[in-house]
Amino acid sequence: MKKLINDPRTVVAEALQGVALAHPGLLTVVTGPDHIHRADAPVQGKVALVSGGGSGHEPLHGGFVGYGMLDAAVPGAVFTSPTPDPILAATLAVDGGAGVLHIVKNYTGDVLNFETAADLAEAEGVQVRAVITDDDVAVKDSLYTAGRRGVAGTVFVEKIAGAAAQRGDDLDAVTAIAQRVNAATRSMGVALTAPTVPHAGEPSFDIGDDEIEIGIGIHGEPGRERIALEPADAIVDRILAPIVEDLPFASGDEVLLLVNGMGATPLIELYVAFRRAHESLAAQGITVTRSLVGSYVTSLEMQGFSLSLLKLDAELTELWDAPVQTAALRWGR
Amino acid sequence: MKKLINDPRTVVAEALQGVALAHPGLLTVVTGPDHIHRADAPVQGKVALVSGGGSGHEPLHGGFVGYGMLDAAVPGAVFTSPTPDPILAATLAVDGGAGVLHIVKNYTGDVLNFETAADLAEAEGVQVRAVITDDDVAVKDSLYTAGRRGVAGTVFVEKIAGAAAQRGDDLDAVTAIAQRVNAATRSMGVALTAPTVPHAGEPSFDIGDDEIEIGIGIHGEPGRERIALEPADAIVDRILAPIVEDLPFASGDEVLLLVNGMGATPLIELYVAFRRAHESLAAQGITVTRSLVGSYVTSLEMQGFSLSLLKLDAELTELWDAPVQTAALRWGR
Repeated sequence: MKKLINDPRTVVAEALQGVALAHPGLLTVVTGPDHIHRADAPVQGKVALVSGGGSGHEPLHGGFVGYGMLDAAVPGAVFTSPTPDPILAATLAVDGGAGVLHIVKNYTGDVLNFETAADLAEAEGVQVRAVITDDDVAVKDSLYTAGRRGVAGTVFVEKIAGAAAQRGDDLDAVTAIAQRVNAATRSMGVALTAPTVPHAGEPSFDIGDDEIEIGIGIHGEPGRERIALEPADAIVDRILAPIVEDLPFASGDEVLLLVNGMGATPLIELYVAFRRAHESLAAQGITVTRSLVGSYVTSLEMQGFSLSLLKLDAELTELWDAPVQTAALRWGR
Repeated sequence: MKKLINDPRTVVAEALQGVALAHPGLLTVVTGPDHIHRADAPVQGKVALVSGGGSGHEPLHGGFVGYGMLDAAVPGAVFTSPTPDPILAATLAVDGGAGVLHIVKNYTGDVLNFETAADLAEAEGVQVRAVITDDDVAVKDSLYTAGRRGVAGTVFVEKIAGAAAQRGDDLDAVTAIAQRVNAATRSMGVALTAPTVPHAGEPSFDIGDDEIEIGIGIHGEPGRERIALEPADAIVDRILAPIVEDLPFASGDEVLLLVNGMGATPLIELYVAFRRAHESLAAQGITVTRSLVGSYVTSLEMQGFSLSLLKLDAELTELWDAPVQTAALRWGR
């Protein structure tokens, strides 16, 4: 295992110390139980958004804490759900009296622990709602998950619901927007190589030098099939088709397209993939009116990428464009 | 070779098509000869900044084209200097009558081709100056380079000189600022793995499973020594010391610290490195007042990182903080 770490047992804690030192005006990092929140939390009268999950997917979620997006992020150990304690602590820390929305990727452990934390927070008088993201069309009932998995489309939910909260929507309205975004989002990924979890010390799965895994999960969970490496355009077409068919996206639609690197995929390759996805969508009458290209929801140093598509309307476009100021997404402010 | 590409011969052209489709309002991509410029170029009366070099270091340089930074970027083939033709075309395209500054990383081919393009542009009546960046303290007279190499500190030069041009400084003043930033910047890098150039098809160098290369170049050029893998803190200390000694940075200094991923290093590891660098600098009385953590000057899918340090003063800090709107750096606007 070749990693820039000191000790698998301390990597998350040390990274959090780095985050605190790198973003002093923006973020506050609380240790014991660990979470990250906006430096100006709680924002009185604003609905607060809390997300979280296993570490190893950076910049998700800590990189999305700040004005116009998340109020707090709760990082578990690498690829491991956070326990209820830090989720509860984050929820109480950011509640500004208008309630808290939990945005939870659909993994059994995450869902259970966020539910427990929500119950505990409600017992302390904080109103909590939850939205479970499940944008991955690849498989149903995978390792760690009942139903579909929550993957890179979660960024759309966090950004757009964050903008709705920032403009002053109440808890019911923010929850409804988050549900609407999740319902209109579909994703699928591909892996060229496997990630290595620090405390495991070995790659999460074996894959041949000429093989790729279609429909990979963000923890290296199995996808739909293992095939021989193909040209980029063929791979893009292979995962774009099930995304488009599933919603379905149709001619005349305007969409937000995310080409997401999973950790070790060079940006030059992500743009090659973006070109093909844009071109294929255009050929189907689907117009990419907003886009995002980069590594936003990663799986440590896994080589691979995912495509996420959100069907836009005027309101969702306006909320996507609204100002945001976080470590990983920043515009208009 | 496991890459998300169609053909090694078309990867740069296809990526540029992706860049054009992904950033329509921000960038214009010109093909034949290939370059990227600000969508609103030429900006009349403003000094224009042009940089470039081999592809494979993305987001450098195309990701830094936009308001407050570069006016144009000229991408060569992967790890290969651009020829004079596209450099000339970019220079002519962005000149707004106030002259053009070339920002050139110190590699022999880049320097020669930018010089030739500058001569041709001058012959067409455009005033051109050049600043050669050479921030890498690792080695002198390396493969491809006479003197020191230009590496990740180039981002500081492009951002700060870009802000000076944006506020209305004339060509002499912008050139002087760029030189001042380069003179106050030092960098050094480490590789854990080798990159694979698409048209070569094989890793650029052999490195053992337990070895790292101290002082690596951004094209995989040899560094100072090959040692056994160490804990992250020890590696950070090993490359921070020569950076600090070289300028030298001293107690009481305020600095901008960049922890730069070279392609395949997870963000969580970059924050572990940032923590240690910040802590070690603090112990020497050097205060990190500005920071940047992420993959900004990469070497395809190489695992590794570099540290860059710029000694700040009030003016450089203000120019670093000034609004910027590019694909890869965006704040305040």
